[in-house]
Amino acid sequence: MSNYKAPVKDILFATRHLADLEGITALPGYEDATHDLLEAILQEAAKIGEEVLDPLNKVGDIQGSSLNNGEVKTPDGWKEAYSTFIEGGWNGLPFSPDRGGQGLPWLVATAVQEIWHSSNMAFGLCSLLTQAAIEAIELHGTEDQKTDYLANLIHGNWSGTMNLTEPHCGSDLAMIKTQAVSNGDHYLITGQKIYITYGDHDMVDNIVHLVLARLPDAPSGTKGISLFIVPKFLRDENGNWTSRNDIETISLEHKLGIHGSPTAVLGYGTGKYRKQKGAVGYLVGEENQGMTYMFTMMNIARLAVGIQGNGVAERAYQQAAWFAGDRIQGTAIDNPQGDRVAIINHPDVKRMLMLQKCRIEGLRSLGLILGGSFDKSLKSEDPETRELAQAMVDVLTPIVKSYMTELGLENVSIALQVHGGMGFIEETGAAQYYRDQRITPIYEGTNGIQALDLIGRKLLRDQGHISRAVISFIRADIQNVHQPELKNMKDQITASLDLLESSIASILVMASEDIRKPAGICDPYLRLWGTICCGWQLARAAGAALTLDDGNDPFYPAKIETARFYFAYEMPKANYHASVIQNGATSIAELDISLFEVAG
Amino acid sequence: MSNYKAPVKDILFATRHLADLEGITALPGYEDATHDLLEAILQEAAKIGEEVLDPLNKVGDIQGSSLNNGEVKTPDGWKEAYSTFIEGGWNGLPFSPDRGGQGLPWLVATAVQEIWHSSNMAFGLCSLLTQAAIEAIELHGTEDQKTDYLANLIHGNWSGTMNLTEPHCGSDLAMIKTQAVSNGDHYLITGQKIYITYGDHDMVDNIVHLVLARLPDAPSGTKGISLFIVPKFLRDENGNWTSRNDIETISLEHKLGIHGSPTAVLGYGTGKYRKQKGAVGYLVGEENQGMTYMFTMMNIARLAVGIQGNGVAERAYQQAAWFAGDRIQGTAIDNPQGDRVAIINHPDVKRMLMLQKCRIEGLRSLGLILGGSFDKSLKSEDPETRELAQAMVDVLTPIVKSYMTELGLENVSIALQVHGGMGFIEETGAAQYYRDQRITPIYEGTNGIQALDLIGRKLLRDQGHISRAVISFIRADIQNVHQPELKNMKDQITASLDLLESSIASILVMASEDIRKPAGICDPYLRLWGTICCGWQLARAAGAALTLDDGNDPFYPAKIETARFYFAYEMPKANYHASVIQNGATSIAELDISLFEVAG
Repeated sequence: MSNYKAPVKDILFATRHLADLEGITALPGYEDATHDLLEAILQEAAKIGEEVLDPLNKVGDIQGSSLNNGEVKTPDGWKEAYSTFIEGGWNGLPFSPDRGGQGLPWLVATAVQEIWHSSNMAFGLCSLLTQAAIEAIELHGTEDQKTDYLANLIHGNWSGTMNLTEPHCGSDLAMIKTQAVSNGDHYLITGQKIYITYGDHDMVDNIVHLVLARLPDAPSGTKGISLFIVPKFLRDENGNWTSRNDIETISLEHKLGIHGSPTAVLGYGTGKYRKQKGAVGYLVGEENQGMTYMFTMMNIARLAVGIQGNGVAERAYQQAAWFAGDRIQGTAIDNPQGDRVAIINHPDVKRMLMLQKCRIEGLRSLGLILGGSFDKSLKSEDPETRELAQAMVDVLTPIVKSYMTELGLENVSIALQVHGGMGFIEETGAAQYYRDQRITPIYEGTNGIQALDLIGRKLLRDQGHISRAVISFIRADIQNVHQPELKNMKDQITASLDLLESSIASILVMASEDIRKPAGICDPYLRLWGTICCGWQLARAAGAALTLDDGNDPFYPAKIETARFYFAYEMPKANYHASVIQNGATSIAELDISLFEVAG
Repeated sequence: MSNYKAPVKDILFATRHLADLEGITALPGYEDATHDLLEAILQEAAKIGEEVLDPLNKVGDIQGSSLNNGEVKTPDGWKEAYSTFIEGGWNGLPFSPDRGGQGLPWLVATAVQEIWHSSNMAFGLCSLLTQAAIEAIELHGTEDQKTDYLANLIHGNWSGTMNLTEPHCGSDLAMIKTQAVSNGDHYLITGQKIYITYGDHDMVDNIVHLVLARLPDAPSGTKGISLFIVPKFLRDENGNWTSRNDIETISLEHKLGIHGSPTAVLGYGTGKYRKQKGAVGYLVGEENQGMTYMFTMMNIARLAVGIQGNGVAERAYQQAAWFAGDRIQGTAIDNPQGDRVAIINHPDVKRMLMLQKCRIEGLRSLGLILGGSFDKSLKSEDPETRELAQAMVDVLTPIVKSYMTELGLENVSIALQVHGGMGFIEETGAAQYYRDQRITPIYEGTNGIQALDLIGRKLLRDQGHISRAVISFIRADIQNVHQPELKNMKDQITASLDLLESSIASILVMASEDIRKPAGICDPYLRLWGTICCGWQLARAAGAALTLDDGNDPFYPAKIETARFYFAYEMPKANYHASVIQNGATSIAELDISLFEVAG
């Protein structure tokens, strides 16, 4: 098994030359986030990822987290690694310095995050969830709540969770049954929540659960859901957080992957820890506004899951490239009488590696663009910049979440395939990435939900207004790829954007005829966007590389080759997806479900 | 978890109306293989698959096979199930009645095999390997060897294995090191073989290993490899097969999936079981002809692996359709105020199910066509029919092996996705198919090796002669889809065949310029074939269904809908693959492997 090496140079290149680091540094409050600082941060993060987290990834897979007598134990070494992680201030990177955070832009946080998820995705999940909890409290909590929770969450000696899913409701949160009853200054929560990532564990002193629940008199559906802070430990009479709340860890799920990350079933108000049944919870913001608050957090969490998908793919790719360089098998196809060669020399193996490489690099840059768009949407002083940045956030979030995880999944499978028979043997390590990665297209909103979001909220709702704004931006931006050698790439992007616009026009017509029709082709619609966005980034990367190339660094010609490969092997998919959008309109809406019965 | 239901009706439909059962029944010796007999056989196989094998699939996954004190134990219940299986005569379906087989065509054997692999792929592997061993001995063994081994192998109280791989050689068998030294009427074999499926187990009385090894004076490379029969138990002085041969089960692999199937590392001649070191082996055919003999078996084994891939996909699809019909979540997109509905009603879920369904049905038919082609190539009295059938076997074998397993892999992943979060939980069952299926694109020649075979041996070697023969056949055959409603499908197939022919012309030019170029696009070349072949079968199915539809059986309209979906969502891939073939020619051959180094 190979050791992970953080691709610092490529992350830096993408952040600086493709994701407009300079523009982010110009935002108020982010003046210190210079290229030099970012480089220093990434080098430090690389050390922790390579030396601390990567060696624990396999331990986590093999041991998993376990539940004994109601307490969850993380794998050997994880607790110590977590201490190292939070002592370095990594948990609070993008949060307010007033509460102990580093006050760095989301762009920087995004750049750093990839390293955690590459080196140990199951470990990285803990701080991903904490980050979401911090967001919720920062944006919607009272001043007292901020004082009570933020410093510890930002430091990381407390962690956070998101409690949405119940046994009977996943994507459809309107069906939530968990109850919250007012009881003086707090509420009493009863119900069962499932799939709670890091729902309990031993790396922190307290766990702050953010729980969706329903008040007795709440309107039905999503308009009757409220958000509560429900800590594992409450304040005791001395003001110390030692009093166990009524939250029981009922079980941990036996999962396909990310075994190190404890996925808990939590019982609220089972009476295990307190006489008065009901877990003590504190309302966040106003009653019945829980879904709205949840959505504000989701964008950041969805970006993070996209980064995970690409991060795991990077790790798997490195393992595959290492294996292919090491494994001697067969002679060169143009020299059959020659010596045996490493399989990395075989054209079809090169193809498999290049496919992973070009996707990972293009999507890395896209994720960073989205990270930077968060910053601009929140901090820019120019309203037009903010508006465009918000359109980018709205449109790119479902694409980044879905396409980075969808291709991430394909990539880890290709990485496994490079190993031949050894890929199927668990000791080799490639199989773990194949198992771990399988969750990323599912959680934080399945990729189907993302595609519906892209075609529904982000296209039909405003008749294509923000989608077309993003398209116009890409159209203008691709003109900056001015080198004649890259004209073909620029032309392909422009032609694909034409296809995308005509697809949008068709979809708007379809929707006016039968709303089921767009829903039947939301998947190829998202893929069309993804294919174009990834190509857009790679063309820009090739342009920047051509400008920077002084003949001394193979990094730049490699960038150009990588883009060239993408445009030869991947970019033609744009036409395919556009064809499906055209054809699909009539083929799915009316299908009767009896079609899926098996005739014995 | 759903119960498996063998899709008997669809298998029958495909065998009769698409795979020319009538033509096979007309072959000498196969007169009894009528539609009625096939139906009876399939009904019986369905019972065993549904009632005996399917319930043991999960047990096999959880328990796995284990090695204790040198002996391999299969999971609980497997031994008894295997007895039921062989007592029914299933193991010897396509083999000579003179040796106890059923003497049925490969077409019938192929139809039946899907049921074993759907219900329990890890279990089905045992007889798949035995079948290959029988083939080897039938085709190349001496009369004495046939007498010694065939009856027991065909009955199934003995099983067979294939011993090719060694730690340092997988795809590149020229590097085999295992030694065979002549010793009177036999040879003594020493060396280590890995990845030996059912290399040892407790379901049979004896195991007949077919082992590739090298004689001391053998030429180097693949021309110096010989094939040996090396039984686990040799004849004792009384003529009973009780004398343990010098074959040691060193370990079982810890695999991603198919845990029930024991994958052994075997040591030949370790001296564990006999004083005189070296396992006793018997030469098959002539010295140094091992590779040739191996290739004759491989076609059947590759078809079988394709059937596996599709079989597991069918099982996963059924589970997904069952789950989607059961899981209530969300309202209908065109009735948001209405009641909650099962997710099978959501258009994007329908899309996911239809994608699986259309691929599985199209590929099922393609696999049967290949099974029937084996029969015709072996038994037809008409030399032209034999020649065309042989071309079909040559060209379709790598396509069936690769494309059925490649799409099979995509399908099981989509099936898992349909389950949302539950798909990631092992208890749900979807994850097992995702793990099990991962081996099918790897073993029996990786899909990369298949693609090289298709573009090398089956295209470049004869400058496209047999490939064009198959194309001509498809061109003529698709004209039988005569209904005006299906004209669009017929036209799409014809247009795609034009693309395929122009791709072939390009590839021949590429090869004359630089042999590395075709190797860089062998993958999209195979996919182009696969896309067309699957569409060809579905268009034929739609044509047959239109003819047979009397308005009383929803099976026939469903066939037409399924084909329609494929032509809308999948068939446009043909253009994509053809574009990659065109573009790819210049993009991969020259890539330097330093490109794959990570810059930290």
